[in-house]
Amino acid sequence: MDYGKFSIEEVENQLQEEQKAFKKLTKKGLQVDMTRGRPAKAQLDICMPMLEKAATYDYALKAGDARNYGQIQGVKPAIDLFAEIFDVYPEEVIVGDGSSLTIMYNVIQFAMQFGVLDNEPWNKQEKIKFICPAPGYDRHFSICEDFGIEMITVPMTQDGPDMDIIEPIVASDPAVKGIWCVPKYSNPTGVTFSDKVVERIATMKVAAPDFRVFWDNAYVVHSLYDTEDKLKNIFDVARKAGTIDRIYSFASTSKVTFAGSGIAAMAASETNIKSILKHMFYCTIGPNKINQVMHAEFLKDLSGVKEIMKQHADILRPKFELFEQKMSEAFEGDEYVKWSHPKGGYFISLDVKSCAKRIVEIAAEGGVKFTAAGATFPYKIDDKNSNIRIAPSCPSVEEMDYAIDVLISAIKQARMELVITKTKAK
Amino acid sequence: MDYGKFSIEEVENQLQEEQKAFKKLTKKGLQVDMTRGRPAKAQLDICMPMLEKAATYDYALKAGDARNYGQIQGVKPAIDLFAEIFDVYPEEVIVGDGSSLTIMYNVIQFAMQFGVLDNEPWNKQEKIKFICPAPGYDRHFSICEDFGIEMITVPMTQDGPDMDIIEPIVASDPAVKGIWCVPKYSNPTGVTFSDKVVERIATMKVAAPDFRVFWDNAYVVHSLYDTEDKLKNIFDVARKAGTIDRIYSFASTSKVTFAGSGIAAMAASETNIKSILKHMFYCTIGPNKINQVMHAEFLKDLSGVKEIMKQHADILRPKFELFEQKMSEAFEGDEYVKWSHPKGGYFISLDVKSCAKRIVEIAAEGGVKFTAAGATFPYKIDDKNSNIRIAPSCPSVEEMDYAIDVLISAIKQARMELVITKTKAK
Repeated sequence: MDYGKFSIEEVENQLQEEQKAFKKLTKKGLQVDMTRGRPAKAQLDICMPMLEKAATYDYALKAGDARNYGQIQGVKPAIDLFAEIFDVYPEEVIVGDGSSLTIMYNVIQFAMQFGVLDNEPWNKQEKIKFICPAPGYDRHFSICEDFGIEMITVPMTQDGPDMDIIEPIVASDPAVKGIWCVPKYSNPTGVTFSDKVVERIATMKVAAPDFRVFWDNAYVVHSLYDTEDKLKNIFDVARKAGTIDRIYSFASTSKVTFAGSGIAAMAASETNIKSILKHMFYCTIGPNKINQVMHAEFLKDLSGVKEIMKQHADILRPKFELFEQKMSEAFEGDEYVKWSHPKGGYFISLDVKSCAKRIVEIAAEGGVKFTAAGATFPYKIDDKNSNIRIAPSCPSVEEMDYAIDVLISAIKQARMELVITKTKAK
Repeated sequence: MDYGKFSIEEVENQLQEEQKAFKKLTKKGLQVDMTRGRPAKAQLDICMPMLEKAATYDYALKAGDARNYGQIQGVKPAIDLFAEIFDVYPEEVIVGDGSSLTIMYNVIQFAMQFGVLDNEPWNKQEKIKFICPAPGYDRHFSICEDFGIEMITVPMTQDGPDMDIIEPIVASDPAVKGIWCVPKYSNPTGVTFSDKVVERIATMKVAAPDFRVFWDNAYVVHSLYDTEDKLKNIFDVARKAGTIDRIYSFASTSKVTFAGSGIAAMAASETNIKSILKHMFYCTIGPNKINQVMHAEFLKDLSGVKEIMKQHADILRPKFELFEQKMSEAFEGDEYVKWSHPKGGYFISLDVKSCAKRIVEIAAEGGVKFTAAGATFPYKIDDKNSNIRIAPSCPSVEEMDYAIDVLISAIKQARMELVITKTKAK
């Protein structure tokens, strides 16, 4: 709504009415946590049959007893499963423990301390920079902050990151060593990168020989509907273009089986995999291979994974659709309130011009916690104070219903407050 | 045997006889791998009941559903279990995934990149050195090699590392930042550090404010007999002396439940734990907490762990005793062949003056693989070419019987070869 067309008195009255309604709404004292993409309890129950059969799986693998030391690349059945998910060769896969973030952190740590392949360690280079399409995943940006890697914020478009901005930067600056991408059902925008963007990322000219694409395919199988977004296989493109060493890809079953107790994997060229395994030798005696066998036997293959994902989608979809429905009713056609309409992933991205922080604040007063405004941007700086990440997975449908009512009221209040402040300042 | 008292012809004849006997012995073509301290299959079967009950444990913890994200310090029941094992407060424990080596690597990596507490990162200091009691655990030394940390080799005595050598070094050189210790049933000597050595390590003057004791209590509950070696609690000593920030301790259930699929933990002062958790935030979304709950519920407490360890001991003890018996029969009183008589742990340490490499070589020809000679020393340099690490856990008793016969013959042959070479060189 454009409150600017009302007189200040009218807006003040409307605000008072809204505040009263908010008080009434939030009287019940409900608490809803929508800060992170946590699976709901019902989702965590889906794979309990995997645990029921834990003692029955075949741990006597060709390469040795999975219950013993060794096999640091992961067990063959788990490698094969992820090779199918990534659509690469098994030799291009490492399967680790539950956290894909740990694998990402490790390869960056290896690069900082020891260098990428035969290149100079990043620690010994004056400055290291990463391209950070934003809004994006806060934990990617945290890793950069931790290592003192300078982040270059680049806007996301409907097709993926803005390649017109990225290409000249990476082509000219050898200090730019990487780009963070969540290419499918992106966190938080829900965008799946277009074929053209995938091709440009895989083939663009890079000034740094040790430039790497951190292709975090976290939502590779996380569709909400039967027809899923198609993401072009970046390895196919890079293989043809002779740039395959540039690609590091990541995925996990954290949102397939159990959050943090799943298995995570990395795909990369054989050259990269060999080098990373060499570094890994020093930091592990191997992953939890019992968990890997459990996963591989229970999930079987990509189609087995997709069967499980349908059950997740059935739980998630109503919450996404409730958001869409209620927000459309409240703000359809409102130029000040825009949100994404993802067909998969875990997030909805909400844009509310100049009001994000205040909205999160008001919602918190109503017991509804959203991710801190700005969290989805490098250095937590959202210049436009506009983006809020909505994580519908954890609350129940009833909690979600309440949370959206709170959000809608918070948006209206924050907008009116802003109009009043601006008008008075004139 | 002192072959020096025979004529060279007599020794040559004896060697020929021994070689013939060796050929006959090894004709069956048996292959025995004694390179590493891997649990035997029978040991890995002990904890299968833990997996049988995997779906029945209570994952709904006070701090949140263990099947979901979060709780990066580990789940409370697992923290409590390790607090009892380490004999420290729960606030002084972090429980991670299966590999304690990973925790050790990580704290060193944090020290290299970010510094210990408020001290300068080790990467920014000119040289970093570690005290490495030897023979010791090869994977400790590997971490140092990986990070370019200079290793100062210090001999092990029957009471632990030689403190008379260590104290003046750490008191005077601020580049010395750490010492590796396996204080109980040490790898490979089987030595348990004396109270006096524990006290000296905890209280010695150190020049570096960021000096850390890497107290790898890998065999804390790994006794072969009912009466176990008593190791003084270094945290108690350090707490009293005001040096508690100096101690990092590590342990895991790799040799309690499943090798690599267990749970590993670290104990340290609250100040250290808080700082390490801060760094860990960037590299993980949390450990496999399903596995942690499984372990805590199945093992229950220290006495539950000890029940399991008795079953391990029953499998391991006959192999250790067979070694003792056969080696005594062959070499009792022989000043050239000495071995340890451990009451726990996973290894026997064999000392064979100037012959280690050749013995490992001959045994390999007989199908018996030992850890490479020298592997238990920094830079793999055993000046005396003397030490061989024997790992009796993996082979069956029958395989072990064969392996010892091969070893005994290899020792004799190598000794005679050496005498002949030396005599001819005169």
